[in-house]
Amino acid sequence: MIEASKTGQKIEIITYGMVGGGGGAFIGDVHRRAIGLDGKAVLTAGCFSRSRDKTLAVGENLHLDNERLYTSYTEMAEAEGKRDDGIDFVSIVAPNNTHFPVAKAFLENGINIVCEKPLTTNADEAEQLAALAAKKDLLFCVTYTYTGCTAVKQAKEMIERGEIGDIRFVHAEYPQEWLAESIEKNPDNKQAVWRTDPKQTGISNCVGDIGSHIENLVSYVTGLEIESLCARLDKIGEGRILDDNATIMVNYKGGATGVYWSSQIAIGHDNDLSFRIYGSKGSIVWRQETQNYLKVTYLDKPTQTLSRGRDSFFPRAASVCRTPAGHPEGYFEAFATIYSTFIGALAKKKAGEKLTGDDLDFPTPADGIQGVRFIEKCVESSEKGVVWVDY
Amino acid sequence: MIEASKTGQKIEIITYGMVGGGGGAFIGDVHRRAIGLDGKAVLTAGCFSRSRDKTLAVGENLHLDNERLYTSYTEMAEAEGKRDDGIDFVSIVAPNNTHFPVAKAFLENGINIVCEKPLTTNADEAEQLAALAAKKDLLFCVTYTYTGCTAVKQAKEMIERGEIGDIRFVHAEYPQEWLAESIEKNPDNKQAVWRTDPKQTGISNCVGDIGSHIENLVSYVTGLEIESLCARLDKIGEGRILDDNATIMVNYKGGATGVYWSSQIAIGHDNDLSFRIYGSKGSIVWRQETQNYLKVTYLDKPTQTLSRGRDSFFPRAASVCRTPAGHPEGYFEAFATIYSTFIGALAKKKAGEKLTGDDLDFPTPADGIQGVRFIEKCVESSEKGVVWVDY
Amino acid sequence: MIEASKTGQKIEIITYGMVGGGGGAFIGDVHRRAIGLDGKAVLTAGCFSRSRDKTLAVGENLHLDNERLYTSYTEMAEAEGKRDDGIDFVSIVAPNNTHFPVAKAFLENGINIVCEKPLTTNADEAEQLAALAAKKDLLFCVTYTYTGCTAVKQAKEMIERGEIGDIRFVHAEYPQEWLAESIEKNPDNKQAVWRTDPKQTGISNCVGDIGSHIENLVSYVTGLEIESLCARLDKIGEGRILDDNATIMVNYKGGATGVYWSSQIAIGHDNDLSFRIYGSKGSIVWRQETQNYLKVTYLDKPTQTLSRGRDSFFPRAASVCRTPAGHPEGYFEAFATIYSTFIGALAKKKAGEKLTGDDLDFPTPADGIQGVRFIEKCVESSEKGVVWVDY
Amino acid sequence: MIEASKTGQKIEIITYGMVGGGGGAFIGDVHRRAIGLDGKAVLTAGCFSRSRDKTLAVGENLHLDNERLYTSYTEMAEAEGKRDDGIDFVSIVAPNNTHFPVAKAFLENGINIVCEKPLTTNADEAEQLAALAAKKDLLFCVTYTYTGCTAVKQAKEMIERGEIGDIRFVHAEYPQEWLAESIEKNPDNKQAVWRTDPKQTGISNCVGDIGSHIENLVSYVTGLEIESLCARLDKIGEGRILDDNATIMVNYKGGATGVYWSSQIAIGHDNDLSFRIYGSKGSIVWRQETQNYLKVTYLDKPTQTLSRGRDSFFPRAASVCRTPAGHPEGYFEAFATIYSTFIGALAKKKAGEKLTGDDLDFPTPADGIQGVRFIEKCVESSEKGVVWVDY
Repeated sequence: MIEASKTGQKIEIITYGMVGGGGGAFIGDVHRRAIGLDGKAVLTAGCFSRSRDKTLAVGENLHLDNERLYTSYTEMAEAEGKRDDGIDFVSIVAPNNTHFPVAKAFLENGINIVCEKPLTTNADEAEQLAALAAKKDLLFCVTYTYTGCTAVKQAKEMIERGEIGDIRFVHAEYPQEWLAESIEKNPDNKQAVWRTDPKQTGISNCVGDIGSHIENLVSYVTGLEIESLCARLDKIGEGRILDDNATIMVNYKGGATGVYWSSQIAIGHDNDLSFRIYGSKGSIVWRQETQNYLKVTYLDKPTQTLSRGRDSFFPRAASVCRTPAGHPEGYFEAFATIYSTFIGALAKKKAGEKLTGDDLDFPTPADGIQGVRFIEKCVESSEKGVVWVDY
Repeated sequence: MIEASKTGQKIEIITYGMVGGGGGAFIGDVHRRAIGLDGKAVLTAGCFSRSRDKTLAVGENLHLDNERLYTSYTEMAEAEGKRDDGIDFVSIVAPNNTHFPVAKAFLENGINIVCEKPLTTNADEAEQLAALAAKKDLLFCVTYTYTGCTAVKQAKEMIERGEIGDIRFVHAEYPQEWLAESIEKNPDNKQAVWRTDPKQTGISNCVGDIGSHIENLVSYVTGLEIESLCARLDKIGEGRILDDNATIMVNYKGGATGVYWSSQIAIGHDNDLSFRIYGSKGSIVWRQETQNYLKVTYLDKPTQTLSRGRDSFFPRAASVCRTPAGHPEGYFEAFATIYSTFIGALAKKKAGEKLTGDDLDFPTPADGIQGVRFIEKCVESSEKGVVWVDY
Repeated sequence: MIEASKTGQKIEIITYGMVGGGGGAFIGDVHRRAIGLDGKAVLTAGCFSRSRDKTLAVGENLHLDNERLYTSYTEMAEAEGKRDDGIDFVSIVAPNNTHFPVAKAFLENGINIVCEKPLTTNADEAEQLAALAAKKDLLFCVTYTYTGCTAVKQAKEMIERGEIGDIRFVHAEYPQEWLAESIEKNPDNKQAVWRTDPKQTGISNCVGDIGSHIENLVSYVTGLEIESLCARLDKIGEGRILDDNATIMVNYKGGATGVYWSSQIAIGHDNDLSFRIYGSKGSIVWRQETQNYLKVTYLDKPTQTLSRGRDSFFPRAASVCRTPAGHPEGYFEAFATIYSTFIGALAKKKAGEKLTGDDLDFPTPADGIQGVRFIEKCVESSEKGVVWVDY
Repeated sequence: MIEASKTGQKIEIITYGMVGGGGGAFIGDVHRRAIGLDGKAVLTAGCFSRSRDKTLAVGENLHLDNERLYTSYTEMAEAEGKRDDGIDFVSIVAPNNTHFPVAKAFLENGINIVCEKPLTTNADEAEQLAALAAKKDLLFCVTYTYTGCTAVKQAKEMIERGEIGDIRFVHAEYPQEWLAESIEKNPDNKQAVWRTDPKQTGISNCVGDIGSHIENLVSYVTGLEIESLCARLDKIGEGRILDDNATIMVNYKGGATGVYWSSQIAIGHDNDLSFRIYGSKGSIVWRQETQNYLKVTYLDKPTQTLSRGRDSFFPRAASVCRTPAGHPEGYFEAFATIYSTFIGALAKKKAGEKLTGDDLDFPTPADGIQGVRFIEKCVESSEKGVVWVDY
């Protein structure tokens, strides 16, 4: 926290640090840009890499003070925890298997957390983090990107308000094509190498990486809870040990049913996350690649295309719009909305204000736990012979 | 058969009769229009209804001779089988549970058959018909409409030629919305009443009516054979005894997998049959409602939209185009292509010519049997608790 | 006319003849198929070619009586005019420059007319035909295809009822690509040769062939009358004497404005006729290649996609639907609806019934005259230096 | 410029100031966000409003030093010009009629410029600014947003490389709907009030605001120069003095032709800028609202959809991608790319490096002059009676 006094007013600046995100990593850059888009927090500390040299290089490029560039995350957590002007929160964008110890260290030092998904590599650890954050009264956000999309928030509220009646069936999918060939055989293709390597990735590749976005998104939008599922995890690419294509039948509590499909071998799809939700009075369709629009059909009425910024959105969704209709928002805006909400909550909390539901409209460790459990259940179902497993 | 001699040439006219299709029935009209579009066969006899009066009324409207309007299908089969100028084939568009006896009667009287799908209400009867047709050396066509679409034939041949490599995954769906409400409670809504009534419809409504189109279409296009399946048949509409929404995981022989979804409660969908077929070298996407186009993506090449009539189609597909690019073909053309192929084969057979593969490119009893078995297996899987059943 | 008496009732069969349409001509086949789709009229006479042999060959293929296959259109007009069972109407699908004498001959012999567009090669002749038809009290239809599309009729009535308020601006276009290269240099490409040859085609190629469809369609849908226009007719393909691309600014009576674009060199477009009509309260967009849908936007309401067969269409449009929603209608259906309306009017007239507005909802010589005048005005404007010319 | 020395390296930070952009103005916020997205420049000074209080309030919110918040742009230009750590460039986002004096003041004090479009309200002033920037050797950027879109840069280079052959015809349009009703009658609707008021907006509303984007975009992508034009500027909304709908026929040097349409009354369109460029060997279509894709058709090859990030883009376009395929870029990215290029050029220039073509790939005063001239010519043509005027 930096205090500044100019015209007599006290202006709080939210500051943050980053663990990971050095050395050309895509996702660290995304987090910094997403925060930069709104300019509500300033990066002031970092441990960008296990290599001290890399951390220094990245830090200088980002104009950080040398003394706040750390050799290890433990050093950083302790030092920042002690500083009067220590960071308000840390962004954890390091490899998945480090999320748990890193987040734990910062929580223990009283620092709020934003952590990439999947939160941890097993549900137990996720629960420990959730408990620790609660005990320490710290804010904790897991960056499931797509719940930050404006039209997704609109869909969520339309469903909450009963606009499409009782949900009956959900079709959600996330096809990609980037692993259609066994490109991990080329060691230079680091992203492919680690994603397909069980030692680095854990028990699932396709469900773990992208199937879990489906689970999170459907859960967020519909409020439905999974009762049981039946998952077939295919290992299609030559030599693959982990899944690269997954079909999952889902039964929800209350009787609705659904089917999810995620794939990394679906040639012709870039990043084609979508959901179609069918209720007793209407349906809502959303596709990430055309994320500024919602297709809504009510019984016996023509299909409507709602355009973000043009057509009436409910207050929460409207509040996260940054541009007028026809000026497309995209990937960074979704990320930025998650950060913006989190930072807003942090500022309110620091100012002693009470946080409302909308203030806390970002993915939490509870979502993270749910995500990890989903992955575990899918793998369990598939390994037992594609059978139904209860939640 | 009518013979006509004008300039010395003998011109064969193929003639046909119809069983069913009276009294405002939609599908009988479709068959007659589809034949009329190409003008290669002439309607000369009929038993359009169980009511003699209705048959007469329909027959007069269609300008038929009184003496060839029959009181029963048995009378018609016998009489036409004996006439020198008897019909070359009969179109059976009567209710599903009459297909078997009607087709049997005409086969026994030496008359070729075109029959609506589903061929019969159980696989045994379907096999009997196939055997009888073979024994009598008669042609037999089952009108699975969508294999008649030009772009479907193109997709089939692209796959046969290996253009998208080995097939890995199939996603096919057929959502409709017309049974989103329990409209069968209104007795005037006859279509809804009989479709949802197990006494009239048999063991399945949604899979039986439209899920079976998915099975037929995927089988035709890919050549894949189902090894096992796991089907969840939902009964969503209030009071429904039969399924109105179905999710089916499929394992094919050879290792490919797939998922099918058919629904009659999916608000926002008219008749939205589509397939997406993913191979090792590319993918092909087709949607019935925009049936003049194919979306094709090869590895590392931009996605292409092939336009029927514009872009190079292989000879079989090209041969069934009736209009240039941008002059849309639709539902009747698909039907007409099935009839046109069947009638062409009949004419060749009558002329003593040998029939090639393309001549016989229409759905046969073998497809009909497969369709009936698919329905049976889906119901079996679902009733046993949505478990895997072998084929 | 053939009379048939079976069960006591008299059933009228409408019969027709054809002039042109032999020798592999595309359009004659389209007319016959379009009539065959509905089966409301029967072909009984023809003069399909200037070659007697070709006429005989085509006629036999179509199972016509030898005695009603004629050597010349004059012979046919006279002979059919005298027969008791003479044709009710003639379809003229011969080259454009023969439309006038052929139509005149049949009118003079008391035979109703369906004639391909453009009606004549100059406005004077068109007016003569209109006058003659009126004097003889005969029905006369000009086959501007696209006014037969179901959704076009819906758009027309929505505008008539004031649903989009006062029309302010019209954007209509008809891009094609088939003349992007100078394929007329290959003499085998007959279609290209005659279209680009002023001797055969007249004063305009692009406006004459397809620009005139825009004019007819906009006029039909909006009821707007052109007050003045400013047309730039480009001759782009190497060696072209006639236009292959045309941009036309239009001022309508009453103050609305518009712009039309037609092209035969627009690579990437098949047959991409569309209109977008902007009123004070809403807009309507229609595209021929996706002709089963209308995009409608009202002020401050989400954009709607109306689906033919699903969403409420007004009675006239609803009456010409042949299939349920999601079962696409296309090119032949549009044609068939024009014929079906014309044949229905003829039957009513023969039965002595009074014809209402909907009975006469097919393009008439008045539309044909307007079309010819539009072409003349565009050429005049362009030749004078792309200046405004009054109507 | 701030210098920072940490590990021995000197890290240059580019700093900037802003004139305008206070008091809830949309566009100032957009500029700051666009810069924040890449984080390559830091805001250090500002004169955000004519009101000292507002400037202070905005400045504090943005964490600026009090001493660098100025009462007038002249004070700011002089003070920053004298400081050792003065701003590297100023962003001018004040009303259009202030662009000229503000830009002049900063140029005269040796400060580089980024200025909103339109550059000035007449071509003379635009030329003065261009000359002054050249004389002072300062960089000057005019923020025509859409040339910053990645796919637009790809289209430009495809055309430069001759991929679609010689350009023959251009169709470009920019329809919006926000002025469909005369909302300027409500004085609270400030945007509508000033846009439709000739005193504040100048000689044109619709062409000035959005038509000029068409001109800039087509010019950038094709390199074509206008030789003459014929423009019809409609004043449709009740009581409008300025145009709200414009149709413009264009003749380019070298013989190609085009048509532009811009509108603010086209109900159903948000911000629907698009171009379609037809060449002798192919065509390219781009639409701003789906800006991550290009539709490309080559003669006799299927239409391709190029996806940004997936399909091979040329180096310049590839260099401005921030996300992988399927992670949509939008409005802010286009803006950010213009800034990023400008800031990169500035950094290189400060480092004494030579600037190449790609370094200078941002809109310049030359584009600004061309834009102002286009507006003047359109108004001249329309006022003279929609006649052709030479450039």
